Amino acid sequence: MKLGVCYYPEHWPEAQWAEDARHMAEIGITQVRIGEFAWSRIEPEPGVLTFEWLDRAIDTLHRAGLHIVLGTPTATPPKWLIDAHPDVLAVDAHGRPRRFGSRRHYCFSSQTYRAQCARIVAALARRYGQHPAVQAWQTDNEYGCHDTIISYSDAARAGFRRWLADKYGQIDALNKAWGNVFWSMEYRHFDEIDPPVETVTEANPAHRQDWARFASDEVTAFDKVQTDIIRAHSPGRDVLHNYMGMFTAFDHFKLGKQLDVAAWDSYPLGFLEWAWWPEATKLRFLRQGHPDFTAFHHDLYRGVGKGRWQVIEQQPGPVNWSAWNPAPLPGMVRAWTWEALAHGAECVSYFRWRQAPFAQEQMHAGLLRPDSSEAEAAYEARQVATEIKALTPGSHRQAPVALVFDYEAVWATQIQPQGRDYRPLELVIHFYAAARRLGLSVDVVHPSADLTGYQIVLCPLQIFWPVDLALRLKASGAACVLGPRTGSKTDDFQIPADLPPGGARTLIPITVNRVESLRPGHIEQAGPFQVTRWLEHIASPLTPEASTDSGHGIWYRTEAVDYLACWPDAQLLETVLAKRCAERGLAVLALPDGLRLRQRGNIQFAINYEATPVNLADYVPGATSLDFVIGGVELPPAGVAAWKLR
Amino acid sequence: MKLGVCYYPEHWPEAQWAEDARHMAEIGITQVRIGEFAWSRIEPEPGVLTFEWLDRAIDTLHRAGLHIVLGTPTATPPKWLIDAHPDVLAVDAHGRPRRFGSRRHYCFSSQTYRAQCARIVAALARRYGQHPAVQAWQTDNEYGCHDTIISYSDAARAGFRRWLADKYGQIDALNKAWGNVFWSMEYRHFDEIDPPVETVTEANPAHRQDWARFASDEVTAFDKVQTDIIRAHSPGRDVLHNYMGMFTAFDHFKLGKQLDVAAWDSYPLGFLEWAWWPEATKLRFLRQGHPDFTAFHHDLYRGVGKGRWQVIEQQPGPVNWSAWNPAPLPGMVRAWTWEALAHGAECVSYFRWRQAPFAQEQMHAGLLRPDSSEAEAAYEARQVATEIKALTPGSHRQAPVALVFDYEAVWATQIQPQGRDYRPLELVIHFYAAARRLGLSVDVVHPSADLTGYQIVLCPLQIFWPVDLALRLKASGAACVLGPRTGSKTDDFQIPADLPPGGARTLIPITVNRVESLRPGHIEQAGPFQVTRWLEHIASPLTPEASTDSGHGIWYRTEAVDYLACWPDAQLLETVLAKRCAERGLAVLALPDGLRLRQRGNIQFAINYEATPVNLADYVPGATSLDFVIGGVELPPAGVAAWKLR
Amino acid sequence: MKLGVCYYPEHWPEAQWAEDARHMAEIGITQVRIGEFAWSRIEPEPGVLTFEWLDRAIDTLHRAGLHIVLGTPTATPPKWLIDAHPDVLAVDAHGRPRRFGSRRHYCFSSQTYRAQCARIVAALARRYGQHPAVQAWQTDNEYGCHDTIISYSDAARAGFRRWLADKYGQIDALNKAWGNVFWSMEYRHFDEIDPPVETVTEANPAHRQDWARFASDEVTAFDKVQTDIIRAHSPGRDVLHNYMGMFTAFDHFKLGKQLDVAAWDSYPLGFLEWAWWPEATKLRFLRQGHPDFTAFHHDLYRGVGKGRWQVIEQQPGPVNWSAWNPAPLPGMVRAWTWEALAHGAECVSYFRWRQAPFAQEQMHAGLLRPDSSEAEAAYEARQVATEIKALTPGSHRQAPVALVFDYEAVWATQIQPQGRDYRPLELVIHFYAAARRLGLSVDVVHPSADLTGYQIVLCPLQIFWPVDLALRLKASGAACVLGPRTGSKTDDFQIPADLPPGGARTLIPITVNRVESLRPGHIEQAGPFQVTRWLEHIASPLTPEASTDSGHGIWYRTEAVDYLACWPDAQLLETVLAKRCAERGLAVLALPDGLRLRQRGNIQFAINYEATPVNLADYVPGATSLDFVIGGVELPPAGVAAWKLR
Repeated sequence: MKLGVCYYPEHWPEAQWAEDARHMAEIGITQVRIGEFAWSRIEPEPGVLTFEWLDRAIDTLHRAGLHIVLGTPTATPPKWLIDAHPDVLAVDAHGRPRRFGSRRHYCFSSQTYRAQCARIVAALARRYGQHPAVQAWQTDNEYGCHDTIISYSDAARAGFRRWLADKYGQIDALNKAWGNVFWSMEYRHFDEIDPPVETVTEANPAHRQDWARFASDEVTAFDKVQTDIIRAHSPGRDVLHNYMGMFTAFDHFKLGKQLDVAAWDSYPLGFLEWAWWPEATKLRFLRQGHPDFTAFHHDLYRGVGKGRWQVIEQQPGPVNWSAWNPAPLPGMVRAWTWEALAHGAECVSYFRWRQAPFAQEQMHAGLLRPDSSEAEAAYEARQVATEIKALTPGSHRQAPVALVFDYEAVWATQIQPQGRDYRPLELVIHFYAAARRLGLSVDVVHPSADLTGYQIVLCPLQIFWPVDLALRLKASGAACVLGPRTGSKTDDFQIPADLPPGGARTLIPITVNRVESLRPGHIEQAGPFQVTRWLEHIASPLTPEASTDSGHGIWYRTEAVDYLACWPDAQLLETVLAKRCAERGLAVLALPDGLRLRQRGNIQFAINYEATPVNLADYVPGATSLDFVIGGVELPPAGVAAWKLR
Repeated sequence: MKLGVCYYPEHWPEAQWAEDARHMAEIGITQVRIGEFAWSRIEPEPGVLTFEWLDRAIDTLHRAGLHIVLGTPTATPPKWLIDAHPDVLAVDAHGRPRRFGSRRHYCFSSQTYRAQCARIVAALARRYGQHPAVQAWQTDNEYGCHDTIISYSDAARAGFRRWLADKYGQIDALNKAWGNVFWSMEYRHFDEIDPPVETVTEANPAHRQDWARFASDEVTAFDKVQTDIIRAHSPGRDVLHNYMGMFTAFDHFKLGKQLDVAAWDSYPLGFLEWAWWPEATKLRFLRQGHPDFTAFHHDLYRGVGKGRWQVIEQQPGPVNWSAWNPAPLPGMVRAWTWEALAHGAECVSYFRWRQAPFAQEQMHAGLLRPDSSEAEAAYEARQVATEIKALTPGSHRQAPVALVFDYEAVWATQIQPQGRDYRPLELVIHFYAAARRLGLSVDVVHPSADLTGYQIVLCPLQIFWPVDLALRLKASGAACVLGPRTGSKTDDFQIPADLPPGGARTLIPITVNRVESLRPGHIEQAGPFQVTRWLEHIASPLTPEASTDSGHGIWYRTEAVDYLACWPDAQLLETVLAKRCAERGLAVLALPDGLRLRQRGNIQFAINYEATPVNLADYVPGATSLDFVIGGVELPPAGVAAWKLR
Repeated sequence: MKLGVCYYPEHWPEAQWAEDARHMAEIGITQVRIGEFAWSRIEPEPGVLTFEWLDRAIDTLHRAGLHIVLGTPTATPPKWLIDAHPDVLAVDAHGRPRRFGSRRHYCFSSQTYRAQCARIVAALARRYGQHPAVQAWQTDNEYGCHDTIISYSDAARAGFRRWLADKYGQIDALNKAWGNVFWSMEYRHFDEIDPPVETVTEANPAHRQDWARFASDEVTAFDKVQTDIIRAHSPGRDVLHNYMGMFTAFDHFKLGKQLDVAAWDSYPLGFLEWAWWPEATKLRFLRQGHPDFTAFHHDLYRGVGKGRWQVIEQQPGPVNWSAWNPAPLPGMVRAWTWEALAHGAECVSYFRWRQAPFAQEQMHAGLLRPDSSEAEAAYEARQVATEIKALTPGSHRQAPVALVFDYEAVWATQIQPQGRDYRPLELVIHFYAAARRLGLSVDVVHPSADLTGYQIVLCPLQIFWPVDLALRLKASGAACVLGPRTGSKTDDFQIPADLPPGGARTLIPITVNRVESLRPGHIEQAGPFQVTRWLEHIASPLTPEASTDSGHGIWYRTEAVDYLACWPDAQLLETVLAKRCAERGLAVLALPDGLRLRQRGNIQFAINYEATPVNLADYVPGATSLDFVIGGVELPPAGVAAWKLR
């Protein structure tokens, strides 16, 4: 457990660097990320490499005892590069090249740009690959930020055609897989196929799904150019990438396979404003962020990083990029930091050291204000640094609950929502949050993951059903909760020949005869539960555990499997989970909306996300006699408590 | 009265065809529409015609005793055609060609495409024109679907210039008609004129109205290429086109003149979601559709088809294309079918036979599920087929009420709404629904129609006033109800020199001195009535029947004419109509929102659109002693009753 | 004080002109604006000038005793000009040239168009510059209407590069000023710089601010071509431009420097609908317009015109261009006219004489209807003309309150709102309205204005702090109220090195350590006040006058300066102002929302904006014994009263 910070020496007079480094160390920071975005300073003219300033910056930080994560600057190709190679630019849906003047203006499919990146990354890796301060590398920055995964360039089109030819071999196989006989969409050659864009009405969903898969693969291929070079020149160092929360346009697990560590950028207040929460929730957690949204991402990136992960950008105050940008509650930056550490983060690194007085992010807070005075977060970071020293919780243990998350299913649901508010990530976090409210720790895993050791496996969104998933589930002995639409598509984006749930029918004997989506305001009452948005009409020999008053079963259950034939409400989810937990002997709590627990090693953490105090004694049995190492039984707003498990 | 279905043999293994045909016949279906969208199978390579599979499909259906409506495949030109002739593509408002990958990507003005269509249609007509099973042809599919009437191609621009030159002869006539002296918009030659698009602020409304007229004429001209060929090669067969509900971008009456039968595609739940209804209405009729919306279209297409019409695509379950896609109430597909037959439909044909497991419409229900099991609608269709056999109602009789509907007025109101919520189709159906609530049957007619025999003529939206309409109205002896804005524009989209209502002033002595539109929330109380959206300030020797509390007359009345100087509320409309009916000796009812009556021949039908039962005795005098042929005095949800008129 | 009208002789038969002129004079009109938009009649073919009709029109008006404001027709270049010189067209953000067919399709930066304008304006000025009837010239029409200040043409890009090179001299100076080291945005040459458009995420705010400044300067430069020519050929005549309300995309003060008179186009009902008012306000003032919005513009344009200004287009009835277009309350046109005159207008000129029955504005009311009958406004104008004769109020006197308004700050706030609803003009008018409710007259002035003589100076939006403003404020002796974000940016759009309020700190010892924006629905209670939208965290030796319940000072006060560290509510603004007024011995009233007072010379005017009567005695001390020259103590809806000050 350690703290870090993001620093841009090129933004400040060289005379200030040493004092900055000293100040960081004084606060208790040990890791510094630098270098990303600095291309125009590293190579101000084509081929003219000016590393001297960076040498001095790294040495200055090194002398202060700080470890460095060195970022590659490829998210911001400079103007001269763009002008020399206009084919580097990404192309929008209307065929217009993106323009210079911000960042991420490049196309992942541009071979020209891949070559340029290889050149600059190789130069960096050769120069700093063995530097004792450089302990890790970050590739690029936030792949996908500002909706940049997709490019409709000539390079992307050519790449897509090659990708399809590789996948299908023969054009007839593609025509059959996509069902192109529909609307005379049949192709005679792979070279007739364009990206699915600007069609008169929606393009074929199979066409769109393959396009999404291709685009995701391009990100991984783009990144691999860098990781291969870094590994060659900088052995023994970690390679990471900083993922961004809420981004699902490429498969984070697939990229994660070629990384050592998954890092992510955690902005709880910005995400609260971005996401789908109702007005009342946005107001309630205005200065705290949603109690489950950030935690879900911690658990996700632990899965993506195969256990190794960090928060490499932690929001330290108001940001500049949301519709509204409030300040965190006093103490909240500390609470966020502890939530991440409780989930197993190796490091929490604040973005950024000093608020820049210029350019696009001048309204983004840092640990310091532009005048170098300490902002609120500096005090809170210092407190965490002190607290960390008193704790040795050990590392993360396998959670009792796994949640299976599949980026391909996210794309599929976005391509074919069938109901406008069928938001895939919302459904996934809806399941996740139910487990959190019961006090359960959760691992987020890929559909191909080994499920051994889990008590309960949640599959809220398993649209595509891997051929071996039922076998792995059965082998694990875990109980399994399947969400609506499970197995509703073949890999070719077709309805299974035997109707949904297709391959998942080996788990539970049901058939989905019909599905319907329901506009907001329409509620199907189902005893104590309320169904909204989505209802399936099921045929099954099973007697449903719950049915709508109109007679449709919404919850089917076998000894080991639950199937939810609707968009469930919170009460239904908690009922299903609590019943399984009772059977499995897993103790559950009934936590209020703002109190959350998380276990790391032998330490149990509790965080209060409310703006009012909360007493653990109301929710945690034996709370008054716990062995507290941080805080106590009464948690103030944004309060943190931790106690040793016996 | 018969039932039909839409079938795509090319989507299924040939081995399945015979069983499908047998199954159709068993259910009671006698008409099958096939062929539309099949271009890539009929001509897989340029010039290579592969009719053999279609021969066998037609023969298979024929052997099962089914009649065929053969569709031309011109809504979906294949990829090779587009690549060989890129000028076939429609062009969007920003000058970008539409792209291949869905359907309707062609430009109506492309002479190249017209030639290609002539070629393929001639080949089809020659091969199948005399086939005994082929009883009718459908041209193309849903002209206008996905907003495809307008194209800004070079061909359209050239066509528009020719169209204007034909209409105006001299450029000075056009400049004068359009008032181009305003803002120095005067042209010196027809070749200087572009489509009215991407101007800095709105283009001249006269320019836009002529563009809309031109675009509508292009549809008719495009269609005529096909109908002429079909008539030449397939004498004695009906030619129809399947119009789509809610589409008003071209003049359906004008196209109807060259057809034998008007067909339309009726999706009551999809339309409910699409249309302007308030939230509460959308929730109330979520699984039933709006009781008057579909009926209006039935009456409209009977007018368009000069009495001959059918529903060629009937929604059988959830669809895939609305924001939300609920399932119909049990029994509702039967009720929709009977509503159409009650309005005089020759056939109701379900879309589609079997739900396709692939491509864009895989979530669109059919009579069968993808696994060939029967979906709910199959049972309901079978029930109707049985019920039909017991009934011989005869054909439609002239209704007592005519509603004049003018596509040109729709365009004019969209071009110049003057108040954002002045939705022309909403106003028209608002008038129509008032008559339905009074239990009156309505014919929807073109402004040029013969009005002889009607008791009441409604003109809710007669912006342009045909020079002879007043004479025809007077000659008919009918009472006439004129909506706001009647006669408010000359054919050149100018305000009449003597102010509105222009030519309609010979019917009623009023002058519209001023009009105003009112934002939502502003209500002008007028005794028991409430005026919203629109209020006219009238000068007249007449004493108004009703006035706003602020002193503006809103209802003027003579012996034979009512003029409504506002957007009327439901109560005002019903009051006006009921008063005229009383004078004319027309009996009226007071039907609740969900109960509707319709007469066909000597049979009176009643449909319950509520999700709760309704008792006819509460609304229909003598209901307990009727001679029921379907149902009885108590209608369940989605219930149908029919009785013989004495 | 006089009345005018806008007239388009080219729209009407020549035979009608003399009667029109007579009728105008009869009503009491003395000024007529003509000529704008008439290019296609003045020059129907390239180089063919047909002035004869205009000669006759001017002579006809002259003979009726009318004075003429002659407009240059440059807002509407004709089609032949566009076809001959396509580079005249403005280019949109996506690189597409704007199209012909409405107006304002030209690019301010096009040197070709400037030459064409010089040619036609010189021809007009030579012909009519000395005509005795021509007393003033209007350049072009409503610069900026329909969002036309910005063009992304090649000419604009080249101009922008020159402008930047002039401003910064060296590229390094620009890189440093903009902070281009951020995200590797550094340039090597001015010719590498493009307009800030279509970047992947937001462009650098400094880049955008300079682009806004450049675009504004282009308007002034464009206009100067015309004013220089007119002054050369038409000495002694006033040159004016008709600004449009709510437009802030160019600096009206800067353009005003080269004009003799500022004119503006006042459409109170259209603006009410356009602007940010909540639903309830829009309904309350539906037929009156907002009581402070129009008045603010009067005071603004008096400042822009250095004291000389007029309303050259006054709404006379419903317009055609808002989402909804209601009619004014009876008497409201008179009330608007008097409000303008009370603020010191030299003339109020109605737009337009006769409603045109054709083209885009056919639904825009005039003094006459299309059939030449008098519309309501004609009667009200006649009444004002009579009333004017009885009054000699003298000219405007300096108000006790100045409000500093800075267009550059509007752009800055739009570029970096930081909270989505931080609407700059709303904040400014929020301050202005508070003063109006207290019965105070206000002058709106440029930040560089001489502040001598004012008692109170309001700076609601002084983002950039002119180096000498603190000195001028102190020298004036005025009390000063500073709004949030005062001095928060340097001229280079950077945060001041010593943090905000930067240069304004010499006025009041505070430091803004942090700012936050708050989503709608979040209220920070501060005793009797409510903070929404924006809250600053202040460090200061001062004890705040008011603080949020969470402990943040929101109102800091010294002997002469108030600083508001939040988006204040109406009550806080009134409290701050009333307290200063009390100290300064300025009497204040407590006017209800719909009653407003304004002083001109020795006459005090009162206008009732409510749809219900109001009694002055309830609000104005001694109201029953005033020396009324218009109206009396009881004001009907839309009523006007005026009395002599003693």
